[in-house]
Amino acid sequence: MRLVAEEHPDLHLSCSLNGSDCATIHTHTHARTHTYLQDRDTRAPLSHSVCGFAWSRWSKMSSSGWILAVCLVVLEVSIHAVWAEEGPGSERNCSAIPPYLPPTAVNTTLRLHHLRAAMKPLNISAYIIPATDAHLSEYIAPRDARLAWISGFTGSAGTAVVTQNKAVLWTDSRYWIQAERQMDCNWELERDVSIRSITNWLIKEIAEGDLVGFDPFLFSVDTFNSYNSNLAPADRILQSFPDNLVDKIWTDRPPLPADKPTRLPDSVIERTWPMKVEEIRAQISTDPYKPTAVLLSALDETAWLFNLRGNDVPYNPFFYSYTLLSMDEIWLFVHTERITEELKVYLNSSCYLAYCVQLIEYSHVRTYLANYLLRPGLRVWVGTEYTNQALYELITPEEKLLTSTYSPVLTTKAVKDSTEQRILKEAHVRDAVAVIQLLVWLEKKVPEGTETEITAAHFVDECRSKQKNGRGPSFETISASGPNAALAHYSPTKETARKLTVDEMYLVDSGGQYLDGTTDITRTVHWGVPTNFQKEAYTRVLMGNIDISRTIFPPGTRGVNMEMLGRRALWEIGLNYGHGTGHGVGNYFGVHEWPVGFQTNNIPFQEGMFTSIEPGYYKENDFGIRIEDIVLTVPVTTKHGNNYLTFETVSLVPYDRNLINTTLLSPEQLHWLNTYYETIRHVVGPELERQGLKVEYDWMMKHTAPFLIAGASAVSSFTLLVTALFPALLHHLL
Amino acid sequence: MRLVAEEHPDLHLSCSLNGSDCATIHTHTHARTHTYLQDRDTRAPLSHSVCGFAWSRWSKMSSSGWILAVCLVVLEVSIHAVWAEEGPGSERNCSAIPPYLPPTAVNTTLRLHHLRAAMKPLNISAYIIPATDAHLSEYIAPRDARLAWISGFTGSAGTAVVTQNKAVLWTDSRYWIQAERQMDCNWELERDVSIRSITNWLIKEIAEGDLVGFDPFLFSVDTFNSYNSNLAPADRILQSFPDNLVDKIWTDRPPLPADKPTRLPDSVIERTWPMKVEEIRAQISTDPYKPTAVLLSALDETAWLFNLRGNDVPYNPFFYSYTLLSMDEIWLFVHTERITEELKVYLNSSCYLAYCVQLIEYSHVRTYLANYLLRPGLRVWVGTEYTNQALYELITPEEKLLTSTYSPVLTTKAVKDSTEQRILKEAHVRDAVAVIQLLVWLEKKVPEGTETEITAAHFVDECRSKQKNGRGPSFETISASGPNAALAHYSPTKETARKLTVDEMYLVDSGGQYLDGTTDITRTVHWGVPTNFQKEAYTRVLMGNIDISRTIFPPGTRGVNMEMLGRRALWEIGLNYGHGTGHGVGNYFGVHEWPVGFQTNNIPFQEGMFTSIEPGYYKENDFGIRIEDIVLTVPVTTKHGNNYLTFETVSLVPYDRNLINTTLLSPEQLHWLNTYYETIRHVVGPELERQGLKVEYDWMMKHTAPFLIAGASAVSSFTLLVTALFPALLHHLL
Repeated sequence: MRLVAEEHPDLHLSCSLNGSDCATIHTHTHARTHTYLQDRDTRAPLSHSVCGFAWSRWSKMSSSGWILAVCLVVLEVSIHAVWAEEGPGSERNCSAIPPYLPPTAVNTTLRLHHLRAAMKPLNISAYIIPATDAHLSEYIAPRDARLAWISGFTGSAGTAVVTQNKAVLWTDSRYWIQAERQMDCNWELERDVSIRSITNWLIKEIAEGDLVGFDPFLFSVDTFNSYNSNLAPADRILQSFPDNLVDKIWTDRPPLPADKPTRLPDSVIERTWPMKVEEIRAQISTDPYKPTAVLLSALDETAWLFNLRGNDVPYNPFFYSYTLLSMDEIWLFVHTERITEELKVYLNSSCYLAYCVQLIEYSHVRTYLANYLLRPGLRVWVGTEYTNQALYELITPEEKLLTSTYSPVLTTKAVKDSTEQRILKEAHVRDAVAVIQLLVWLEKKVPEGTETEITAAHFVDECRSKQKNGRGPSFETISASGPNAALAHYSPTKETARKLTVDEMYLVDSGGQYLDGTTDITRTVHWGVPTNFQKEAYTRVLMGNIDISRTIFPPGTRGVNMEMLGRRALWEIGLNYGHGTGHGVGNYFGVHEWPVGFQTNNIPFQEGMFTSIEPGYYKENDFGIRIEDIVLTVPVTTKHGNNYLTFETVSLVPYDRNLINTTLLSPEQLHWLNTYYETIRHVVGPELERQGLKVEYDWMMKHTAPFLIAGASAVSSFTLLVTALFPALLHHLL
Repeated sequence: MRLVAEEHPDLHLSCSLNGSDCATIHTHTHARTHTYLQDRDTRAPLSHSVCGFAWSRWSKMSSSGWILAVCLVVLEVSIHAVWAEEGPGSERNCSAIPPYLPPTAVNTTLRLHHLRAAMKPLNISAYIIPATDAHLSEYIAPRDARLAWISGFTGSAGTAVVTQNKAVLWTDSRYWIQAERQMDCNWELERDVSIRSITNWLIKEIAEGDLVGFDPFLFSVDTFNSYNSNLAPADRILQSFPDNLVDKIWTDRPPLPADKPTRLPDSVIERTWPMKVEEIRAQISTDPYKPTAVLLSALDETAWLFNLRGNDVPYNPFFYSYTLLSMDEIWLFVHTERITEELKVYLNSSCYLAYCVQLIEYSHVRTYLANYLLRPGLRVWVGTEYTNQALYELITPEEKLLTSTYSPVLTTKAVKDSTEQRILKEAHVRDAVAVIQLLVWLEKKVPEGTETEITAAHFVDECRSKQKNGRGPSFETISASGPNAALAHYSPTKETARKLTVDEMYLVDSGGQYLDGTTDITRTVHWGVPTNFQKEAYTRVLMGNIDISRTIFPPGTRGVNMEMLGRRALWEIGLNYGHGTGHGVGNYFGVHEWPVGFQTNNIPFQEGMFTSIEPGYYKENDFGIRIEDIVLTVPVTTKHGNNYLTFETVSLVPYDRNLINTTLLSPEQLHWLNTYYETIRHVVGPELERQGLKVEYDWMMKHTAPFLIAGASAVSSFTLLVTALFPALLHHLL
């Protein structure tokens, strides 16, 4: 699943020459928050269930509070939409007289009126509303969708600013059309998403000395610093208001999710939670800055530490929580009413010793932390990318604080232990079966003209659900045919879904949650006759994937130093792609697991880290290509050096032979491809047989037949050599 | 000329997992200060002068104050050295009883005693002494060699810290042996050069609340922040003392250089200084943060702005200066007694208008700036990498300040105008003649056994001096045979110089200053029979150089994103190199011109930027390889995309055919090589003929003969194909 352009700093053509400006913006961009989220539930009824599970299973699986809440939001949108006039298009036209608003637009007049009324007594000139939650989460629960409620815009990435006479939304190119469909004419749309663009606007709009209000729970420390370093020199005062102003006026705000956190079974665990606590405490005690405690703010930090999972946000098995871990005590901030007696025993929560987890009510985190900080001799370690400003701002003076970009939990979690590696690889074998089932099915059904982007998406989701330990999709399946695949952000809806045909390329980017792992894979196929350009583009995307995958590198190498290998074959002919090249992935966790990956703020690769590799190419209004695999960082033996690393691809689904122009591939690339195909046969073959999938087995064998190693370069050399040698050969033979 | 390992962050294996720690250290490392500097003048008398200029010319050229000062320093070293006992080695042994000190060690007992006495009344517990000057220069004048004077250690990179009972030097691996030879047992040597290592040591050694003193003129803003962000949380107070404590006790400190700044001739200028002032003012006036002035602190900033050059520091044609440029006025801080009447007219220095340069005494900069800052409505723009803390700390409150990593002058200077591009390329043609003369001469003389590293270095320096517009070497020539070339830092001395033989590889890294440009090139050769390993290593270094050179990339790509291409062929067999991959270069300016290059803190490449590309490989105690060229960033036409860039190599000297294993090269690499060789023939050929260098012309033609395009991969494919096709062929023919 790809990351957006904004996360690939090297494509920021708008960046000034000034290195620091770029650096500031990128460092403080919350990459995890800029990804896909399903905005509306517009799935078509399911007409078939080859994989044996009806679609309704998914509805049941996720039938917690947030689904209800989505419905409430959708309902509200519909109520307001009726005020819209009938008109000629699906996007608003605010310069028409009278302004044209599509039925999808939301009337925000009253909401804005209430918000502005709430701002006035606090003397707030401008109020910032981000799209995230208090844990800087990528996926948020409906009760945290404040930006959507105030603006109508339901995209996953964006920032709103409201002043007394203006309301502006900043969002990236994926969402411009959606914003024009969902917002009414109270709102302006700004198309540059950098923090600098927002602060420049603020400096233009409000006066020196004016207050810019924000909810500190929704700003990471880094984001706050980014805003502040731009606003402070211009004498605009960025002021924290911990009581969110939108919440105050949001009368029908969705309730808290009801699902209870659960513990992972022992079968998927190598380190128990006390072992993990010990591991983090060892890092606390050996740090030269002598911290006394670690504060964990991101949802996956607490879930990882205690081997717990929940169901509070879509797609990610997380639950609302913070943790404060000292050398002697552990405090877990949760909705305590949702902690079962069994879990209390598991967490040893009835005592106050070093390995007892004291349960504190989630909403008390700020008060509790403020009190705790009155103790003498404290130094609390926080990661600035995933700690919110609401907690950070309590920890003063500076002597009480130790900061690093990521907490020791995030950097420790990034390296999977041997059990995690094994089970995540096993999950990928079953996941490959599901994707192969889809490809086989499509190859048969598409020529019949009966399938659409939506039925294909449902099919692969179902196939995954049938696999052992299946826990639902890890994100909304991107199933896109022809021009739809060229849209940076696309998930099929009833209105947009295309029929799949042999005349169009088709891209499917999907992943599953399994009790033993999280998967994410993209394949692009063509069932008819691709154009030469399509074949060349596909082959060059594949060359990029292979070139990163087969790279040998010393430990300490960062993803950002090698990600251009994914682009080089495209660059050679003047093509490129506008998104990141890869991201970490978790064990039944987030499908975008920070801080592993290929971006500026990712940490160096080490043995045991998993990442996606996903170059692509997108031709507007025509087609889109992406080839994505998950790889594991592994040691490799070289002729002369020790400790070198390379990647082992654990996504095991063949690429579309119909789209590969082998003459473009170097012999080394072909060799890699053949070895990869051998691995698929060797590893996925037995699983297909075990599951009795004979047709799929045969398909897999056919699609993994070895390529003859004779690339373009070889051919040209061959020609040269034969030209040179032919007279001699002839002479010998005659 | 290579940069040190410390500048290649990706090789920092000691970096913690914590991304922010690494980032902090690298961002604030002054890369330009970490380079080669001649430590002692130990050249052998010159016995020949084939290029027609005696070596003494160089002495004459640079016979300004600093040469005298070097002699004074050397003299002092000798005086103290006599107290050393005769002993068994060239390095100190402080654990022997009594301690053994080599004759090269300096007695620092009295100096340290005086420094500690000066620290006491100021309540300073630890005093930091960096190796740079007030302009954060790479090369410093002897009067700024405070670190060398207090410690005895004359290496170019290092930091000393003195407490009441300890004196410690931090320096990198290039200098460890040198430090052990030059320091007495008052000093400890620390081998980790990160700022974190220094601050960790300080936190260990001095108590909470204690003062750490430093001279703010010798700290960049970034360096200060780096130290402070580590020390403040531990409650060690970093305090600025603008009166340098070493200067106070340094009784025989060398005087100011006497040479006067001079203006560049019109022939090498496209933009006059008023045009440049206008260009920078345009950037000031369009910046959204509304700065009112720019403060320039690095020596090349002022020299560039006014098209002036000087002779205050070795190798770089700079003069001590600061500039303050507002929309209405210009202030130039210089040693005014050195400004000639002619220059005053040139600078229009008798008026106070927008294009009049007001001359202010250099030493008054702090006082003048402090007064200036009392004016209302100011906002001064400073680049934090090259502005010293002494000026920065005056600019408060924050509203008066706008910071970026680099000043607009540095980022503007990075893109050469068309005249600068043309003349810098022309200088490289003449420079290629000089290097070819050296290689021809060595090929003839080395088998006779008469030449050494020193005579070779002198020869190439002389050849350059004979070329039009020659202004001396741009750094001390690195001339290194066999194991000497494997030393990260090596320049030959009488004691270390090896005879050149057909049995050893030889590396020569040299460059020239010309009135129209600055050059820097490295070639590695073998006049006998290299081992297979030497050939493979050389070929893979060459592959790295070619792979970066021929890369096609979109604008906005950073060097750090592609520098691994210089390493990949080496990584494949477990080899690597421990230095950076390239740096910007100037027009009769610094040979390391920031902020262009391949490091983390370099800015993205744009058309018109010059950089070196210089991968290498070093086998300890055996041999060293480096292949360095200067390239120009140029537009390139691609099949599908516009605005793509690539590099054009402007260093035009053939590589050693004797060391190239063509079977390792891809057909694309061989094609690049052949095209490059055609360019050499086409561009350098006529210049060699014009200079009547027939022997050199023939040598060049021989060494640029095209290679047959038949790489290893092609051969293997060929074998495969022939195996497959042979029966068919046979059938046809028989």
